[in-house]
Amino acid sequence: MKSVMSIVPRYQETDQMGVIHHSVYPIWYEMGRVKFCDDMGMSFKSIEAQGVGLAMVEMTSQFKKPSFFGELYTQYTYLTECSRVKMTFRYELYNSNEELVHIGHTTLAWLGAGFRPQNIMKNHPDIYRLFARAVDSGEANEKH
Amino acid sequence: MKSVMSIVPRYQETDQMGVIHHSVYPIWYEMGRVKFCDDMGMSFKSIEAQGVGLAMVEMTSQFKKPSFFGELYTQYTYLTECSRVKMTFRYELYNSNEELVHIGHTTLAWLGAGFRPQNIMKNHPDIYRLFARAVDSGEANEKH
Amino acid sequence: MKSVMSIVPRYQETDQMGVIHHSVYPIWYEMGRVKFCDDMGMSFKSIEAQGVGLAMVEMTSQFKKPSFFGELYTQYTYLTECSRVKMTFRYELYNSNEELVHIGHTTLAWLGAGFRPQNIMKNHPDIYRLFARAVDSGEANEKH
Amino acid sequence: MKSVMSIVPRYQETDQMGVIHHSVYPIWYEMGRVKFCDDMGMSFKSIEAQGVGLAMVEMTSQFKKPSFFGELYTQYTYLTECSRVKMTFRYELYNSNEELVHIGHTTLAWLGAGFRPQNIMKNHPDIYRLFARAVDSGEANEKH
Repeated sequence: MKSVMSIVPRYQETDQMGVIHHSVYPIWYEMGRVKFCDDMGMSFKSIEAQGVGLAMVEMTSQFKKPSFFGELYTQYTYLTECSRVKMTFRYELYNSNEELVHIGHTTLAWLGAGFRPQNIMKNHPDIYRLFARAVDSGEANEKH
Repeated sequence: MKSVMSIVPRYQETDQMGVIHHSVYPIWYEMGRVKFCDDMGMSFKSIEAQGVGLAMVEMTSQFKKPSFFGELYTQYTYLTECSRVKMTFRYELYNSNEELVHIGHTTLAWLGAGFRPQNIMKNHPDIYRLFARAVDSGEANEKH
Repeated sequence: MKSVMSIVPRYQETDQMGVIHHSVYPIWYEMGRVKFCDDMGMSFKSIEAQGVGLAMVEMTSQFKKPSFFGELYTQYTYLTECSRVKMTFRYELYNSNEELVHIGHTTLAWLGAGFRPQNIMKNHPDIYRLFARAVDSGEANEKH
Repeated sequence: MKSVMSIVPRYQETDQMGVIHHSVYPIWYEMGRVKFCDDMGMSFKSIEAQGVGLAMVEMTSQFKKPSFFGELYTQYTYLTECSRVKMTFRYELYNSNEELVHIGHTTLAWLGAGFRPQNIMKNHPDIYRLFARAVDSGEANEKH
């Protein structure tokens, strides 16, 4: 599955170089994941309400071009891997000329009570199956 | 009591006008409150650990001069009012020329379990007394 | 004129009390102003491109109820005053039950080259007229 | 060269999981770079004043343990590579038990006028030499 969302940079997200500050992209990734869950039909809020959390384990970011306040961007979110303990998402950000601006990857681990890693397949098979079905490793190749 | 702390603006806190973005000052106020608690001898962490919270009720900000990355600022935090249900803090920010850059006020309500307002004097008299003794309404007059 | 926008809180905007951190509301105000300009037909980007800036002078915030990740909000932005040197906006945030969650006011001064205050009526009468016509002092009364 | 700084998490940096939000670490990296420049004897402000900028090109983050408000951390910043077009920094964050909490790497490209990449060795040999001398590839091995 591929989830698509518009990104409208906030003025507050700019810095004195006149571009969107690099620390903002991970926040956009998170918005992409939340939208991804919504698109699958299970809100992230409802996942948390079941006592399930997701902890960031690893994150990589490639900055191809700067992005700007006053421009409109499109972010594609893919779930590229899903195991019983963790998931990897991929994010691609395009400007309005369909040029690739940014690529991100994040790996998150499933957490249960007390911030302990948990086997989601065993403990919440319904959540696991939903994500596992949404894996889209093939398409995530910078062509959308 | 007057609590003093240095403020070193972060590059990330700038915006494309080349100044510190106005939404950052409330974060500095909060750092001032946390330092104020430390200076009183009771960390904000330990207050929260007793099941006590503080909810923002009202906030006012006066922007006298812009502030900049690469400059050093001093923030003075005063507790100007303290009742059994809420407290008001005042913040003054000065640049290295001792010019007043910014004034803020925040009023916060004491919360207990389930985000309910609570009478702190009744429920946590030790916390109440500590803050009540630290009130400094007279001095908070833009002269430090 | 009244400008309306949806506010979707970001997970990153929460704090460890489980609510949207109070420093986020001023960022939402700014999004409201940007939307207000768009709705008037002159983007804030194009205003800045003419060498015109807006500096925050005063800001007040009233927190009626907490707001939460996973909930949807509606923000109404009104321009309540507009003079040749400054403007005042009012923001009202409602939850999905149409309960008033938050009220903000910001006063911003028109800036020209070198961060100097400027008389916008004299220097950019077209911008001035556009905003002056959009003033809506009467309606801004907590009923939308 | 190794630059050392204390990191005091802000309450605002927490999220509703009760930990520091993952998007904050890149901001701490930036503070580490700014401190690194100060420790070398050339402030980042003075570098920018010479018309030189640094654009983020690549960033990786490994989250070993969560970090918390009310705890104190130490961040070590190393410059691991420096060429005429870009630099790579490494960041290690330790808690007060000297446990490794987080590792980051960032690669930044030298920019000149109009956001164009520049050959810093040719255009600003003094800046280049200062950084080149500060490279510390050997030590950056998770032992400080």
